[in-house]
Amino acid sequence: MTNRYAVILAAGQGTRMKSKLYKVLHPVAGRPMVQHVVEQVGGVNVDKIITIVGFGAEDVKKQLGPKSEYVLQEEQLGTGHAVVQAKALLEGKEGTTIVVCGDTPLITRETYQALIEHHEQTEAKATILTAKAPNPYGYGRILRNKQNDVERIVEHKDANEAELLVDEINTGTYCFDNQALFQALAHVSNDNAQGEYYLPDVIEILQTKGETVSAYQTADFEETLGINDRVALAQAEKIMKQRVNERHMRNGVAIIDPDQTYIEPSVTIGADTIIHPGTMIKGDTVIEENAEIGPYSELTNCHVGNGTIIKQSVVNDSKIGNDVKIGPYAHIRPDSAIGNHVKIGNFVEIKKTSLGENSKVSHLSYIGDAQVGSNVNVGCGTITVNYDGKHKYVTTIEDESFIGCNSNLVAPVKIGKGSYIAAGSTINKDVPEDSLSIARARQTNKEGYAEKIKNRKKD
Amino acid sequence: MTNRYAVILAAGQGTRMKSKLYKVLHPVAGRPMVQHVVEQVGGVNVDKIITIVGFGAEDVKKQLGPKSEYVLQEEQLGTGHAVVQAKALLEGKEGTTIVVCGDTPLITRETYQALIEHHEQTEAKATILTAKAPNPYGYGRILRNKQNDVERIVEHKDANEAELLVDEINTGTYCFDNQALFQALAHVSNDNAQGEYYLPDVIEILQTKGETVSAYQTADFEETLGINDRVALAQAEKIMKQRVNERHMRNGVAIIDPDQTYIEPSVTIGADTIIHPGTMIKGDTVIEENAEIGPYSELTNCHVGNGTIIKQSVVNDSKIGNDVKIGPYAHIRPDSAIGNHVKIGNFVEIKKTSLGENSKVSHLSYIGDAQVGSNVNVGCGTITVNYDGKHKYVTTIEDESFIGCNSNLVAPVKIGKGSYIAAGSTINKDVPEDSLSIARARQTNKEGYAEKIKNRKKD
Amino acid sequence: MTNRYAVILAAGQGTRMKSKLYKVLHPVAGRPMVQHVVEQVGGVNVDKIITIVGFGAEDVKKQLGPKSEYVLQEEQLGTGHAVVQAKALLEGKEGTTIVVCGDTPLITRETYQALIEHHEQTEAKATILTAKAPNPYGYGRILRNKQNDVERIVEHKDANEAELLVDEINTGTYCFDNQALFQALAHVSNDNAQGEYYLPDVIEILQTKGETVSAYQTADFEETLGINDRVALAQAEKIMKQRVNERHMRNGVAIIDPDQTYIEPSVTIGADTIIHPGTMIKGDTVIEENAEIGPYSELTNCHVGNGTIIKQSVVNDSKIGNDVKIGPYAHIRPDSAIGNHVKIGNFVEIKKTSLGENSKVSHLSYIGDAQVGSNVNVGCGTITVNYDGKHKYVTTIEDESFIGCNSNLVAPVKIGKGSYIAAGSTINKDVPEDSLSIARARQTNKEGYAEKIKNRKKD
Repeated sequence: MTNRYAVILAAGQGTRMKSKLYKVLHPVAGRPMVQHVVEQVGGVNVDKIITIVGFGAEDVKKQLGPKSEYVLQEEQLGTGHAVVQAKALLEGKEGTTIVVCGDTPLITRETYQALIEHHEQTEAKATILTAKAPNPYGYGRILRNKQNDVERIVEHKDANEAELLVDEINTGTYCFDNQALFQALAHVSNDNAQGEYYLPDVIEILQTKGETVSAYQTADFEETLGINDRVALAQAEKIMKQRVNERHMRNGVAIIDPDQTYIEPSVTIGADTIIHPGTMIKGDTVIEENAEIGPYSELTNCHVGNGTIIKQSVVNDSKIGNDVKIGPYAHIRPDSAIGNHVKIGNFVEIKKTSLGENSKVSHLSYIGDAQVGSNVNVGCGTITVNYDGKHKYVTTIEDESFIGCNSNLVAPVKIGKGSYIAAGSTINKDVPEDSLSIARARQTNKEGYAEKIKNRKKD
Repeated sequence: MTNRYAVILAAGQGTRMKSKLYKVLHPVAGRPMVQHVVEQVGGVNVDKIITIVGFGAEDVKKQLGPKSEYVLQEEQLGTGHAVVQAKALLEGKEGTTIVVCGDTPLITRETYQALIEHHEQTEAKATILTAKAPNPYGYGRILRNKQNDVERIVEHKDANEAELLVDEINTGTYCFDNQALFQALAHVSNDNAQGEYYLPDVIEILQTKGETVSAYQTADFEETLGINDRVALAQAEKIMKQRVNERHMRNGVAIIDPDQTYIEPSVTIGADTIIHPGTMIKGDTVIEENAEIGPYSELTNCHVGNGTIIKQSVVNDSKIGNDVKIGPYAHIRPDSAIGNHVKIGNFVEIKKTSLGENSKVSHLSYIGDAQVGSNVNVGCGTITVNYDGKHKYVTTIEDESFIGCNSNLVAPVKIGKGSYIAAGSTINKDVPEDSLSIARARQTNKEGYAEKIKNRKKD
Repeated sequence: MTNRYAVILAAGQGTRMKSKLYKVLHPVAGRPMVQHVVEQVGGVNVDKIITIVGFGAEDVKKQLGPKSEYVLQEEQLGTGHAVVQAKALLEGKEGTTIVVCGDTPLITRETYQALIEHHEQTEAKATILTAKAPNPYGYGRILRNKQNDVERIVEHKDANEAELLVDEINTGTYCFDNQALFQALAHVSNDNAQGEYYLPDVIEILQTKGETVSAYQTADFEETLGINDRVALAQAEKIMKQRVNERHMRNGVAIIDPDQTYIEPSVTIGADTIIHPGTMIKGDTVIEENAEIGPYSELTNCHVGNGTIIKQSVVNDSKIGNDVKIGPYAHIRPDSAIGNHVKIGNFVEIKKTSLGENSKVSHLSYIGDAQVGSNVNVGCGTITVNYDGKHKYVTTIEDESFIGCNSNLVAPVKIGKGSYIAAGSTINKDVPEDSLSIARARQTNKEGYAEKIKNRKKD
């Protein structure tokens, strides 16, 4: 099999992004655009990926890690100059080299695969990835010859009237015979208005030598979108969103409004799960079947069981069981494990807490650093006092306990199995099993005093 | 007047939905798609609606109830075979039979009406509902003769180049002379690749007999969308949303962003009410005039009075008065009745509670199973302790009372008119009218002790 | 330089809006449409703006204030009649008069400028603002002569087949030589079906006199949208939203989903700030760089510092420092000042409160009318009891204090520097510096009593 190499152009600053972040590190669907490129190109059996880095070199290398080798382009002297930087790693090698821009995050591995296969099945020394543009204004046009190979690329500004009507455009992605590429690159000059070395000049050099240049036209123009500013970035985000959502819908997920559903590509969702509008699902989240998520919920790195309902809530880095009901307006913070059939109601915060099966925290509570058993009823307004200003402590609530409303459980403290905490108690000593624990003052009614209080003057 | 019958094809499983739910039961705008069909067809003076059921027959029958008669198609042998199942109920009857797919929920009664009227005003034995498709790829094309009647339907795969250019397509909805329909159905064969009996074959059979087949072209192609997968289901949801929202806007409702406003068809809204983005209004909700709902609110089966404002909140099965302010982040649960000029503020849950005029529950409270009078001020953090682990009890708060912050009202308990509960009290005995009630410990300041506590070591 | 006058037609009722609000007062992006018109026209060096008012005259005048002069059109007798009302203020003056509809809020000052300059550079007595309409149905068509000037405007209903194909349409905005305008207006009659005086008749009168009428075609048809009903109003809202969002993106703001981001034109946002979906930013809000706002947040008249994160929250009329974390589900009410590095967590309400650097209010608290120092930890469930039913009082919490969970601070009260409030205390007396303050009952455990309570019968 032919050796395959990939060169990814990722050295630019991206001044039109108006950002301190380097261009190719701007995220689409939660991950940097160059990472999409590396992942998709990496899916096509390449022997070596070489990323040409420049601005933000260290940040790019840190982001991509060992999936790629790196070459530094110290000065930004054009796309041809960028590829030349890989010379020490590639020159003389037999095989196919695909050159890809780091700012085209939407091109899929299927398209790269088709481009490379097309290239390898022809005698061409170079193959251009092209597409039909609905509005080709500004793009380089592909002029084909009688053999349907590429006669020439003509830049928009140099095109005559007939050429301007051509709607097949150069996407900036190419396959080359590796040896031919580096031989031709040696002849590219910077004798132009910008004083830069342009990669497309290789095409003309090859043609002058009588070599064939082919074109592979992808059906999906949208895929080839290059991101030069934040307007294009938002377009890419939208296209990626539609692509991910459509995949889930075809797998049996009900997405009520795909325009308003934000699912990162890494997420897994089971059939017959319903995703309501305004829902964001991120990271390595897995949702099982028949769940119902949203509206207006945000889940990150969660595992959500079958039949669980999460409404208007935020859930992070936690495991949620089956048939759980969460929300509206709940917040599950990291390292929580919620058992099956649990109910977590409105204005409840759960943090670093395990909750056993059938337990309920229905309203206005904070349960943090706690181990809560099964069939526990945590009353409204319960607070685990887990922090004394210096340290954090654990609260343990055993099975079948009933915690009265507005209780404080001052950790470290253990509420024994089957015990009952009276409403309004501040509990700072352990409660034995099956005990009633109470810590509150007796009520006094002072008749006729209400008026007095209401009419007191402001100090 | 001519007798009219409707046959609704609702037997398919819908494997491309990838769902345990049968195809025609998938909801659009909150109700199953076949229910939309039955409601719209039912609006056109039909004497009998016969729904052909198969997969999920019992579920479909349960959903639609007595609005339709049902015939079971035991095996799925094609659309022609499906209609034949209605033979016992329809054969020999004089009149018009409209045959409709259960998966075209967007066709309106106006279109059905126009189709039937067109049919009945011509001599045609069959009339096809057609539409101009922006992209007719995949559809059967309508070829018309010199009389502008239908010459033939040609399937996409059988069409020649000229026929492929025809953009008038068969929507799969038909009107027939009932007797002619069943006579022709007897001649439909399953001698084709799929081994199925196709309803469109009736058209050719009628034409062979010299009968006229007419076509009624609807102006709105979108309406005729058939739902075969969840991608199309989401499209239908979007079209239905736009249709409902446009109706409200033409009635004087201000919808700031109709793309992000989800109103079920059953909802009524008064003029000059403003609906902010991210708002969902469901079920039998009625909103009066000059109200302001949203952003990011969800109302189900509510009645909302004039001038009421509901921001970032969830409200279910409750009656909300005039000039009420709710939210942000409030949750009104079922069976609540909120009086005029009430304020319900952030992080407040109201459940099965009546609140009299001018009362306020401004923050961080749970008021459940309560009867609250007028001009009551419920302080921040107030909790009705309505549940003792076994039973639920009622809290009564009479007019003009003032409930101090962080109070527990342990039900059953009654707070008399004009009384005053001190902050931090747990009240478990009735409070007489005009009384001050207090239940808390005295404050002790221990000077110099703070440092000691802050520096204590972790156990 | 030529004198320039603007006449804004704002007298109509707008019956198709179905509203008690007069047509030109309906808001787009938070401000009345006529105000957009006045602001944009006002940006083009006009010596005098005259607004023709009729329905809602007083409301319109109150809204626009002294930026304009006003003339009352007592009866609505057509656009020509409306302009005639300005006669006393304009007749006989040399210069250019631009006539603009009060219901075209999207036309920009750049377009007005280009129209006026085009007009003043030609010999024309009138210049029509035109645009190419994708679907010109219903519009008056511009017929040009050999000199490329305007031959005639033909109304849709009067157009022949060739004229119907013309897609250059009359937008209803005009420039006139002021003297020629009023001379021609004197000859406009109401001899037509509606019995109204039409401004476009001036064009024909000028042509009859041999004057040149020019046309300036703007490239952006969308801009010229006239708002006659709430469907068009929602379209204008959408176009304005896209325009504002695109401006911010080109300035370096990351807007993840511009379709779901609602930023009023008056807002300022720094580069590298990220705006998540479902975010609304209103009024005079200023957001510095590197902040992260949303999702599903609403900010009005705020100043937000560098690096601050606000998630799923509502913030009004407050100043938020640098590197602050707010939310999810927090509510910052007016007149609050939040210091740098502060954390405000879930289910927290802050009102009319200053919070010093590094302080934390992490959960389920209400801090109102308070002055909180630096490095203060406000425990979960803390409530400032600022209202006694009659007056509001201030709570002061000095630096380095620790407020235990579920505490009530009964204002007026001062918590001295470095002091420590025990959980569950109701504090109604000042706490000296470095003191421990406690106000709660001792805990009693009654072994074996839990079962008894759980099994008690309902009264």
